[in-house]
Amino acid sequence: MVGAPASKLEISKQLRDEMNTETLRVEGKRLRESLEWMAQFGSTPGGGVSRLALSDEDREARNIFIQWLKGIELEVTVDAMGNIFGRRAGREKNLPAVMSGSHIDSQPNGGRFDGILGVMGMLEVLRTLHANKIETRRSLYIVNWTNEEGSRFSPAMVGSGVWAGILDQQWAYSRADLKGKKLEDELERIGFRGSTPCRKGPVHAYFELHIEQGPVLERVQKTIGSPEGIVGILWADAHVQGKANQVGPTPMEGRKDALCAAAEMILKVNELPAKMGGNLVATVGEIQNSPNSRNIIPERVRFTLDLRSWNDELVHKAWEELKSDFQKVSKRRGCPVRMEEIWRVDHAPFSPELVQMVRDASRGLGLEPHPMVSGAGHDASYMNQIAPTAMIFVPSIGGRSHAEVENTSWEDCEIGANVLLQCILKKANE
Amino acid sequence: MVGAPASKLEISKQLRDEMNTETLRVEGKRLRESLEWMAQFGSTPGGGVSRLALSDEDREARNIFIQWLKGIELEVTVDAMGNIFGRRAGREKNLPAVMSGSHIDSQPNGGRFDGILGVMGMLEVLRTLHANKIETRRSLYIVNWTNEEGSRFSPAMVGSGVWAGILDQQWAYSRADLKGKKLEDELERIGFRGSTPCRKGPVHAYFELHIEQGPVLERVQKTIGSPEGIVGILWADAHVQGKANQVGPTPMEGRKDALCAAAEMILKVNELPAKMGGNLVATVGEIQNSPNSRNIIPERVRFTLDLRSWNDELVHKAWEELKSDFQKVSKRRGCPVRMEEIWRVDHAPFSPELVQMVRDASRGLGLEPHPMVSGAGHDASYMNQIAPTAMIFVPSIGGRSHAEVENTSWEDCEIGANVLLQCILKKANE
Repeated sequence: MVGAPASKLEISKQLRDEMNTETLRVEGKRLRESLEWMAQFGSTPGGGVSRLALSDEDREARNIFIQWLKGIELEVTVDAMGNIFGRRAGREKNLPAVMSGSHIDSQPNGGRFDGILGVMGMLEVLRTLHANKIETRRSLYIVNWTNEEGSRFSPAMVGSGVWAGILDQQWAYSRADLKGKKLEDELERIGFRGSTPCRKGPVHAYFELHIEQGPVLERVQKTIGSPEGIVGILWADAHVQGKANQVGPTPMEGRKDALCAAAEMILKVNELPAKMGGNLVATVGEIQNSPNSRNIIPERVRFTLDLRSWNDELVHKAWEELKSDFQKVSKRRGCPVRMEEIWRVDHAPFSPELVQMVRDASRGLGLEPHPMVSGAGHDASYMNQIAPTAMIFVPSIGGRSHAEVENTSWEDCEIGANVLLQCILKKANE
Repeated sequence: MVGAPASKLEISKQLRDEMNTETLRVEGKRLRESLEWMAQFGSTPGGGVSRLALSDEDREARNIFIQWLKGIELEVTVDAMGNIFGRRAGREKNLPAVMSGSHIDSQPNGGRFDGILGVMGMLEVLRTLHANKIETRRSLYIVNWTNEEGSRFSPAMVGSGVWAGILDQQWAYSRADLKGKKLEDELERIGFRGSTPCRKGPVHAYFELHIEQGPVLERVQKTIGSPEGIVGILWADAHVQGKANQVGPTPMEGRKDALCAAAEMILKVNELPAKMGGNLVATVGEIQNSPNSRNIIPERVRFTLDLRSWNDELVHKAWEELKSDFQKVSKRRGCPVRMEEIWRVDHAPFSPELVQMVRDASRGLGLEPHPMVSGAGHDASYMNQIAPTAMIFVPSIGGRSHAEVENTSWEDCEIGANVLLQCILKKANE
């Protein structure tokens, strides 16, 4: 009978914890401070960050992040893909855990919120639970996924993709940046090739807090966006072959100018969504011209293609249409084109139950949520394939993202973290 | 009377030298060997050379070149722009000298003949005179001009331009490459900022042997091209400003995509010559896109413009037309454009007397010369402004130049050097 009072005490604490949760709030000031601290790593003169995956800046931010996790007594592991996990044990250690996070890496000259808000938001949730000594039934995990952006190592979201068992680890290791450096070697170089296997565990629910990266929430004047899911995405590369020559003595007739052929193709991409109807977006973001010299006719052009829609069939049709358009341009200009589909994910509807939970949590804070879809891919896309998943969006000022001017008000960051806190607590005590 | 026999001997040698000249020929094998030797410096896997101005490869080639000049007892000087001169004294040292040369620097992944043929061709002429102990009345100069290509430091032909007094030396020194390295510092680094002032001296005639860099001679099946002069050239840069955003969540409507605006402008440039008529060529050779990331709407694009014609008025009209076209595209797409004219030279007719001399020398070798114009700028453009000037062209196989496959038969190189030899001897004994 020695254990009885302790057990009673436990139960009463548990009840108190669960009753207190609805009024529990994160500390907005602390969240802001951690976001500002992180913005130092890779900070750019224009007020953004360049913290490419597995760069020195990424390493510095990761090291601080791990210190912070240890500061609230989380059990830290780093897996073979460099994904970082912090575990806060629940009362029932054998139940599947609740997980949340996002990514520390950024675009080149990207912003101070994309990705990092979801990581710092969950950290703030865990700090709040720690400070208030609140226990949960299930264990909680915070996670930083490696190389979400895909701007250094293509494609995007390889850390979560390998963890979820959808991408192959050896293939991910072999992805190289523009300088030919391999992801595996760069993991090793920054000391983040961990010893834990990169392999999914049981997940009861996955939430991801993120900035919207678009203009919709601002337009409709809502603070919380609740996406039904993520659009389907197709990535491809086009390689156009021309014939280099000194520009002066080469008559216009008979030229095979790879850049002119590419320019026509780029405009075809841009015109396609209006032509096809539906909610398609189509973009050429990257171009390399070779030899790229003022007085040489362009010999080789490579450019990227990004197609997105909630309607997978529309993406498929658009890609077929472009392949045919490109061939016509190629034939007319005498510039052979090679097209390479490098990545495709279908649209991903989130767990209706979790989406509803996000909406309820928003209403619980007195804010009507805005139903939408996510036009951007997120680690949540892969997590959604192995566990019930939902996302929480907060507004991007001016709709700007992937740019130094990317911004979200501190107040909205705090509100987003409070919605996350409510969802986490609800699922963790199920 | 002691001097009389010597003087008689002198005169008879002079007569003999001048009588022998018409049958004198260069050594094709030796010319080929020096061209092959030079092709090692900056050699590329595709059989071309990357020997950018003031690079380590340029330095190595320059050092060997100077050794070779000293090997035939030339007096070598390097001026403040890094131009290298080798002087072979004539009998009458006070008369203006006859000069010939070209450039050692190359395009990135350029060919093994552009520029270097004119330098090695004149070297072969001087070696032939040296081996045959032939004296000339006037002194002879061989020259290597710094940074003819303009592909590392824009604009082209700065070495000859400063020497001729047309470009300002301090301005030339301040030109920077894409990494921000200044021409002056790179001259210093490779040890070729010479102590001799870069300032023109009296020149009786300037000849430049060069590959055609176009398909015309091959088409008409002629070995020697004799240009009337060099076309007028205008170089400009366009800077297009868009708005960066994450591609997924940003609807097509309202996008300000700098790459799409640039693509339209590039096609305007390409369509212009057919629209305007005349012998205009118009090219965009270089493009930089920023941030150049697969999933970011392009924010800034810079591209180059190169307009050329024998008709200066046509170049001027084309430029005005493009400025107006670009503004229309810019306005429609909401992407401001800034256009910057960075270099302009009028068409340059060569000395009719020297052009005739090249044609006569070709006929003397049994080859009917092809009258044409040069579509490429050369150091001869600036030399033409301060001295009687002409050029000698030999065929480019397949019309290819500024590419690794650039090629000219060894036989044609030899014939070109023989035409040069005849012209040099004629002018040097005037």
